[in-house]
Amino acid sequence: MFKNVICFYYFIYIIFYGQPIVNGTKDEDRIDVLPGQLHPVNFTQYGGYISVDNDVGRAFYYYFVEAEDSKESKPLLLWLNRGPGCSSLGTGAFGEVGPFRVQSDGKTLYHHPYAWNKVANVLFLESPTRVGFSYSNKTSDYQLNGDKRTSENNYVFLVKWLQRFPEYKSRTFYLSGESYAGHYVPQLAHNILQHNKMENKSSFINLKGIIIGNAAINNETDQIGVYDYLWTHGIISDETIDNIHKYCNFSEVVSTSDECLNWTRTAGENIRPYEYNIHAPFCFNKNLTDTPKTPSVIADPCQKSYTKAYLNTAKVQKAIHANVTKLNYPWYSCSDAVHDTWVDTASTTLPLLHELMASGLRVWVYSGDMDSVLPITSTKYSLNKLKLPTKTSYHISLLDFAGYTLVYEGDLTFATIRGAGHMVPSDQPTRALALITHFLNGELLPNFDQAF
Amino acid sequence: MFKNVICFYYFIYIIFYGQPIVNGTKDEDRIDVLPGQLHPVNFTQYGGYISVDNDVGRAFYYYFVEAEDSKESKPLLLWLNRGPGCSSLGTGAFGEVGPFRVQSDGKTLYHHPYAWNKVANVLFLESPTRVGFSYSNKTSDYQLNGDKRTSENNYVFLVKWLQRFPEYKSRTFYLSGESYAGHYVPQLAHNILQHNKMENKSSFINLKGIIIGNAAINNETDQIGVYDYLWTHGIISDETIDNIHKYCNFSEVVSTSDECLNWTRTAGENIRPYEYNIHAPFCFNKNLTDTPKTPSVIADPCQKSYTKAYLNTAKVQKAIHANVTKLNYPWYSCSDAVHDTWVDTASTTLPLLHELMASGLRVWVYSGDMDSVLPITSTKYSLNKLKLPTKTSYHISLLDFAGYTLVYEGDLTFATIRGAGHMVPSDQPTRALALITHFLNGELLPNFDQAF
Repeated sequence: MFKNVICFYYFIYIIFYGQPIVNGTKDEDRIDVLPGQLHPVNFTQYGGYISVDNDVGRAFYYYFVEAEDSKESKPLLLWLNRGPGCSSLGTGAFGEVGPFRVQSDGKTLYHHPYAWNKVANVLFLESPTRVGFSYSNKTSDYQLNGDKRTSENNYVFLVKWLQRFPEYKSRTFYLSGESYAGHYVPQLAHNILQHNKMENKSSFINLKGIIIGNAAINNETDQIGVYDYLWTHGIISDETIDNIHKYCNFSEVVSTSDECLNWTRTAGENIRPYEYNIHAPFCFNKNLTDTPKTPSVIADPCQKSYTKAYLNTAKVQKAIHANVTKLNYPWYSCSDAVHDTWVDTASTTLPLLHELMASGLRVWVYSGDMDSVLPITSTKYSLNKLKLPTKTSYHISLLDFAGYTLVYEGDLTFATIRGAGHMVPSDQPTRALALITHFLNGELLPNFDQAF
Repeated sequence: MFKNVICFYYFIYIIFYGQPIVNGTKDEDRIDVLPGQLHPVNFTQYGGYISVDNDVGRAFYYYFVEAEDSKESKPLLLWLNRGPGCSSLGTGAFGEVGPFRVQSDGKTLYHHPYAWNKVANVLFLESPTRVGFSYSNKTSDYQLNGDKRTSENNYVFLVKWLQRFPEYKSRTFYLSGESYAGHYVPQLAHNILQHNKMENKSSFINLKGIIIGNAAINNETDQIGVYDYLWTHGIISDETIDNIHKYCNFSEVVSTSDECLNWTRTAGENIRPYEYNIHAPFCFNKNLTDTPKTPSVIADPCQKSYTKAYLNTAKVQKAIHANVTKLNYPWYSCSDAVHDTWVDTASTTLPLLHELMASGLRVWVYSGDMDSVLPITSTKYSLNKLKLPTKTSYHISLLDFAGYTLVYEGDLTFATIRGAGHMVPSDQPTRALALITHFLNGELLPNFDQAF
């Protein structure tokens, strides 16, 4: 009878919560070789789940690539993608800074020569639940994602991940990410600092800095910056910008006037096909090819389709220890279900940037200058709200005119990446690697005169 | 004695005026084959001089390529380049819209698949005197170039050229050009219209329209637009734009304050390396290569050096019937001597655009959106001065998101070319050919929805 009761409860558990919690070990998470990985590599890869809430069976998927060499002395870098709802595995790892990109056959991989594991051990996290392979056993749990819970869960993930990888426990640690990670990254950094103060030394996380790109920072100025960018880049008419300035009040969080919605919609129609990079080629044919196209360091505009096909392959999921609970939906690079049900969003993360700088963290903000979603104007307007005095002149930075840079008092560094859209490392991989290298080394971006 | 007097005067003439006037015939001007032209072509080329002032021995060099097919039914299109002082032969023909580009060895040519002689018979003019191969026999004459004399001489050139090529005498005719051709083109069009009214039918020129790109139109707004563009594109700091707005009065023609000069200089330093295309690769090595690099439809950033080497080769000059008077300076793509001694410049050509439209000419103005020299903001600010009502919405135009377009009442068409700098056909040859084709056909640029 007792056994039957147990079985009954297990049955109920399965019905209501799906599969039981899956928690691996470091050895179990090790990825021997990725399907389609044509050549051996000189670094180790891991993939697996960390439970962030055992009660509802909420587990986050991670993919971890150690540095190509001297991994013991290189920092640990967490990368988070945009959204809310987008995958750091598909976009971040396979489209931006990871060591592999998927070829146009959707099956084979090629090595990305400007991967960030040249300079760091890089951890990609699919967060929050319902993003990519991350899941909850309780379906209704998917409706409760928001800024607050995500940052708490990300902290839990991190603590548990460091327990699974104890050699990284006291490693110099940095947070990085783009777009909506302008929320995730400072919020997680804040949580880490709070816990570091409260808890004993054994749970101390050695966070040293954050870097965010084309980031959501301050909702009002972020939005104003979008339309000013569209206008000054020849994408919308004088009539449209005049009416947006007239009818829109972006300090409102929830509603805007019908006139405002009408004119912002007009603006959106003029840019939608390539809002993430106003100068990018467009993906006209998402179909996979029988034989791979010639690989390129610059991501193919149809890259997302190749990655989606790859990550939805059963043998790939098996190899990377993903989808162990057999989710009843495919892997998506971005989940509308997450985006459309987001329960709380900070109107600004500027106070957090202030706090992080005051705590001695390195804070860098970069901007690909071809993005219209969170463009350079938005980032500049938002950073101006910090009212920080400048410490350096605004000058051409890095080799090959990679962009411009400016350091504020308090050592906040702002850098533009010339010729990049929303996904900077995808469009400008060499410049992005140079940027992260300087960030991790705590070096000023050299100006053009010094570079020659 | 009489013979001696003649000889003396001839001697004096040689000393003061250099070589005698050179005036060829159409047959003499025909170019059999260009050095380094590896393959036969299906069109005819001509090159030679037209005297525009016999008294001082002032002669303009031209290069003419007939259409690839059906040349009899295709229009005649004149192309003029920037400056003042830049060559339509080197920049326009060999770098932008002509049928050949020079390879990196400086010796051989490759065929440019998007040349404008697919749709027109294209005439390139080196104007005024001292530009490229155009010359005067009286050295002091070089100091007297300006808007007024150039437009008068260009008209004389045209009349005489049409006498040499009588089959084009009544041909549908269009003027095109970029940058400072925003002066040359409307001024020449005005002269043609004036002469058409005054003179008898035999000298009538069948001008139907003009098209100018990244054009100098209205000095004050052109300048304001430059700095607003630099700021909104992340190239100059808030401090710099604030001070330019504070200290600069661009309605002044001659002088500006020291503060203004200081801040515009700061702005200039941040963009000088790539002001003609803010996203272009930079030419790091101008040296010629022993073997040609792989040709590309997109001009190599070092293209200018290859063309310069080619056009300074004696056998090339002989083949194209240039430099017949053995000038004591090399061929330059742009002549500082012309630029720095310019005697008169119109502060605006807006009244001319009004006049041309009122006279029923087709008037198109286009803008490569990566140019900071005469950027999209400048062109928009300048056209706004015309205070024309709009006739169409501002919408995405052409295939492959080539840019945006808007038609004003009076049928002035404004079009942006996405991903192009100052030299639009060099950066976006397919889009430029689509643009000129629609212009010549008098067709609206299709909007994106129509294109699919």
